[in-house]
Amino acid sequence: MAKIKTIGILTSGGDAPGMNAAIRAVTRAGIYNGFQIKAVYRGYDGLINDEIVDFTTENVSGIISEGGTVLKTARSTDFATVEGRAKAYENIVKEDINALVVIGGNGSLTGAMKFAEEYDICCIGLPGTIDNDLYGTDSTIGYDTTVNTIVECVDRIRDTAQSHERIFFVEVMGRDAGFLAQNSAIAAGAEAAIIPEDSTDVDQLAQFMERGIRKSKRSSIVIVSESPKCGAIYYANRVKKEFPQYDVKISILGHLQRGGRPSARDRILACRTGVGAVEAIMQGQRNVMVGIRNGEIVYVPLSEAIRSDKPLDRKLIKVLDELSI
Amino acid sequence: MAKIKTIGILTSGGDAPGMNAAIRAVTRAGIYNGFQIKAVYRGYDGLINDEIVDFTTENVSGIISEGGTVLKTARSTDFATVEGRAKAYENIVKEDINALVVIGGNGSLTGAMKFAEEYDICCIGLPGTIDNDLYGTDSTIGYDTTVNTIVECVDRIRDTAQSHERIFFVEVMGRDAGFLAQNSAIAAGAEAAIIPEDSTDVDQLAQFMERGIRKSKRSSIVIVSESPKCGAIYYANRVKKEFPQYDVKISILGHLQRGGRPSARDRILACRTGVGAVEAIMQGQRNVMVGIRNGEIVYVPLSEAIRSDKPLDRKLIKVLDELSI
Amino acid sequence: MAKIKTIGILTSGGDAPGMNAAIRAVTRAGIYNGFQIKAVYRGYDGLINDEIVDFTTENVSGIISEGGTVLKTARSTDFATVEGRAKAYENIVKEDINALVVIGGNGSLTGAMKFAEEYDICCIGLPGTIDNDLYGTDSTIGYDTTVNTIVECVDRIRDTAQSHERIFFVEVMGRDAGFLAQNSAIAAGAEAAIIPEDSTDVDQLAQFMERGIRKSKRSSIVIVSESPKCGAIYYANRVKKEFPQYDVKISILGHLQRGGRPSARDRILACRTGVGAVEAIMQGQRNVMVGIRNGEIVYVPLSEAIRSDKPLDRKLIKVLDELSI
Amino acid sequence: MAKIKTIGILTSGGDAPGMNAAIRAVTRAGIYNGFQIKAVYRGYDGLINDEIVDFTTENVSGIISEGGTVLKTARSTDFATVEGRAKAYENIVKEDINALVVIGGNGSLTGAMKFAEEYDICCIGLPGTIDNDLYGTDSTIGYDTTVNTIVECVDRIRDTAQSHERIFFVEVMGRDAGFLAQNSAIAAGAEAAIIPEDSTDVDQLAQFMERGIRKSKRSSIVIVSESPKCGAIYYANRVKKEFPQYDVKISILGHLQRGGRPSARDRILACRTGVGAVEAIMQGQRNVMVGIRNGEIVYVPLSEAIRSDKPLDRKLIKVLDELSI
Repeated sequence: MAKIKTIGILTSGGDAPGMNAAIRAVTRAGIYNGFQIKAVYRGYDGLINDEIVDFTTENVSGIISEGGTVLKTARSTDFATVEGRAKAYENIVKEDINALVVIGGNGSLTGAMKFAEEYDICCIGLPGTIDNDLYGTDSTIGYDTTVNTIVECVDRIRDTAQSHERIFFVEVMGRDAGFLAQNSAIAAGAEAAIIPEDSTDVDQLAQFMERGIRKSKRSSIVIVSESPKCGAIYYANRVKKEFPQYDVKISILGHLQRGGRPSARDRILACRTGVGAVEAIMQGQRNVMVGIRNGEIVYVPLSEAIRSDKPLDRKLIKVLDELSI
Repeated sequence: MAKIKTIGILTSGGDAPGMNAAIRAVTRAGIYNGFQIKAVYRGYDGLINDEIVDFTTENVSGIISEGGTVLKTARSTDFATVEGRAKAYENIVKEDINALVVIGGNGSLTGAMKFAEEYDICCIGLPGTIDNDLYGTDSTIGYDTTVNTIVECVDRIRDTAQSHERIFFVEVMGRDAGFLAQNSAIAAGAEAAIIPEDSTDVDQLAQFMERGIRKSKRSSIVIVSESPKCGAIYYANRVKKEFPQYDVKISILGHLQRGGRPSARDRILACRTGVGAVEAIMQGQRNVMVGIRNGEIVYVPLSEAIRSDKPLDRKLIKVLDELSI
Repeated sequence: MAKIKTIGILTSGGDAPGMNAAIRAVTRAGIYNGFQIKAVYRGYDGLINDEIVDFTTENVSGIISEGGTVLKTARSTDFATVEGRAKAYENIVKEDINALVVIGGNGSLTGAMKFAEEYDICCIGLPGTIDNDLYGTDSTIGYDTTVNTIVECVDRIRDTAQSHERIFFVEVMGRDAGFLAQNSAIAAGAEAAIIPEDSTDVDQLAQFMERGIRKSKRSSIVIVSESPKCGAIYYANRVKKEFPQYDVKISILGHLQRGGRPSARDRILACRTGVGAVEAIMQGQRNVMVGIRNGEIVYVPLSEAIRSDKPLDRKLIKVLDELSI
Repeated sequence: MAKIKTIGILTSGGDAPGMNAAIRAVTRAGIYNGFQIKAVYRGYDGLINDEIVDFTTENVSGIISEGGTVLKTARSTDFATVEGRAKAYENIVKEDINALVVIGGNGSLTGAMKFAEEYDICCIGLPGTIDNDLYGTDSTIGYDTTVNTIVECVDRIRDTAQSHERIFFVEVMGRDAGFLAQNSAIAAGAEAAIIPEDSTDVDQLAQFMERGIRKSKRSSIVIVSESPKCGAIYYANRVKKEFPQYDVKISILGHLQRGGRPSARDRILACRTGVGAVEAIMQGQRNVMVGIRNGEIVYVPLSEAIRSDKPLDRKLIKVLDELSI
């Protein structure tokens, strides 16, 4: 492969707070190290449709503190096709892009991996997802902010729960991974978390409720990972049926979990991995995701990063259980 | 009526941020002026069940910044009955309470009015509701905080809306009054507000959408007052049907709108009306709500305060319309 | 004067949260009503140096929620001179600007008044200052946000004050007007406010301290308006001397009071007065400030708006006093 | 040593957000595992003066989200004396406390170590300090919140810096350790950080300034660790002298950095280490600090934890440097 002179950058999939900080970091570290930066709009669709512009340090001025992504994002269906990727590569060649930094989650990095397998393009992934479900990095860009956003919302809901002595089932994002639910439950002082990694049956909930009754607790909050079948509504209805004496309410936090100013930690993670992406390119790394493990930058092969089995810390279940008495 | 020596205080109905600031204000201003304060727990139910305790300045220390209500609240069904109110009055007599300050919304002040009509008890209302639908006061305790909470949530949602180029229908509280929807729509820079005071048909929405299309705006936010029939889900579905080219999403903010630290303005309103309630008692006022109109404390007869026709400022419709181009 | 076709807009003096919302409102309402908008950078200096660009609705997209001012601001010394204003008018003529909307405080509106007296230019002022010291409007753009920012800071400081049982003197902005100090003191539950409108001597402070001692309060917060001579440091040192048994600390909030996302209320005020500015121009108003009094838009002659004697609400002193027991 | 039945708990030194979450965690995990909990007020002074009360799960209800410490804190001078510690041990014996959990920073854990060396008492430390300067744990309770608080303040200051085109020197806590300054500088997008671990001379600052000039940047923010001699005021004055063309301002964040609701991460750290402290006691650990390293609970001998040479991550200097172009 020829020497890399120009780095393309795009955001893809669900937006996450800190994506802008990552765009800024790649742009500035790239320019600092002598590269030209080309920004691609609307994720892989922008590659296919040639929505590509030159970026300077000024294009990223002031965006470190902003939520969302100035590059827009999309879940591209075209890029999932052979024809779409061929068209994208045409534009890569036309724009003279030698390396592509993709900021996104599982699906987006899978796309990058396929693209790199089919064409001679260096793809570097940055872990940009609120779900924290990418393997090989301790945290993903957006995850810390979202946990804080959820906790802030649950703090508000608890005001109401305590004033009215109610049980709230609060549904949070994380369809396939319970990181958000479990960690926000601990941080919010919730009574329980229902996560996709565990099956929770109504007997367990009943036990928990009975314990609540025993202690004459009068309000409770249960955090539930979103799920097509067994979300907050399902569990709330079951509890209402079994315990008609309770005043049970539901709150589905929804899309507001994605937005807002990134936390300090997400900004630092974005800055460090963004600088790490440029370093990776300079070192000749190819087709890796830049993550941080135990405080150090690591390069994880894309094929490994998208493995679906990033494990929860099971010891946190005990923490939540002991503290919700 | 005998000289008033002891003031009872309770919160009733939906909780609102600033209720604690009001409890603190009544307690401290009462004690400052030589009264004894008795706090009633769980709204009117606490009157009926004699959940009444003495309150000192220390009981209210540090609560000015807290959401919810330390006195708990409830929507009492028993107090709606003749027997319930009789039982409540028994406890009023037993506890030697001469005046009762009720912090709550429409239903709660209606209860206070009835109670005062039937028994020899001075009832003073404080406007405690996020809905701003009490007549005779420019604002209600909790309203300003809730507008700010909604705006903060919509700011977050806009990050996502712009990143993905979507149309969001955001449902907010205010079943019977559009103050929250209209004012948060202006403050959040939303494209439109759908409020109970106006019927909005799909033709109007279509016009609005077409205007959006004309301007090649790619994302929009519409704030919708909650409604059993015509909430955010209704309008979102209509728009999806008429404009299948749009990516339409729904966010129902729900209970988190009630909680959180009160805004400065709500705390000041609570402090001023709380002090005003004690002054009202000292002046011999009876069965009035303490409000603020044009910057001045006013005493509004309870019968007038609960009138349901507090008008929206129609000129704000023009403001929203001109600014959403 | 010829028909007004083009409206110039600038921000001047100290920046205030909500200025961007006002810029957006004037721009959009102007374009909605058929005007052309020209934005002037860096306050009056930009008029003098011809830093003037066309503005469209897109230039103001997304700025409603941002602090600071996208137009930059400055305290112009050149505009205070006859030559400076002559140069500014040359550019006004050259750019074909027929009306000028100035968003700023006392000094900035004084400049606008002078300019309008000397040249044939319609000047409309918007009250943009955190100090709330413009006559004829109930509030100024930025004031509500700053009170909330101060209260948030004092809430944090109180955590430390209570944990360590200290007395804090917190200095806030408002050199010439005590609105910020007085209202934030009430909202933060502070023990006292020292404001420029009143002389506070050490005897008064001593009385207040003694009362604190009597009640065995162990921590206190006093809010002090900034002052070249008698700021927080002055009073803290006096109290340390008189009451060596106290652990006295100082916090000077400084510049962070100006920044941050505007509150809902400041955004609405900016939207309404911005629309009002365009209406004023259409109605043939000249040389007025647009304010809101008792909920209604008012046009206040610039000469009246800059009067320095906007009165504090003295009744708030009593509120603070009764509640700090 | 006899079987441990009763755990004492206290907070000491500077307060840090998350201390309440730690108090709650130790209390609940202790009770869950069959221990009795005794809370000591005002740090080691409370041990000496026997300000000790029984704590139940209800005493810690709702405090997880609160800043400061419900147990109060102090820097005890008496406990630094042999007599003080003797008196403290008398009360330990009298109250039948078998293990003591101390939440605090360097000085507080040094006190715990000395106490454990002199008397037969199991001392467990929890890392409670905003400075992050305890060896053997990746983070300390309060550090993440404080970085976020600083970043929020700098975001506000940047609004003003950019509007007025100024250079701001912002002084933050961390007299002996640059963690706060360095990490908040990266997260806030500041141009430089001046930290106690490095000597920064005016030539370096000049170089940095010249670079800024080259790029025609018009506003800058430099974060400075507090220092008796070389704080923000020192550097600001030097820069004013060397570069009179700049508008240089100073902001000293001060005590507000300590307060506020703890971040999700600090709450989780407090919950995990609090549970870990009880586990340590059950395992027979003595005189260790409970920390988290690489995601796992670790027990660090107190003598090691208080070593003063916790290293900064030098690679972050490069990150800050590349991103501030």
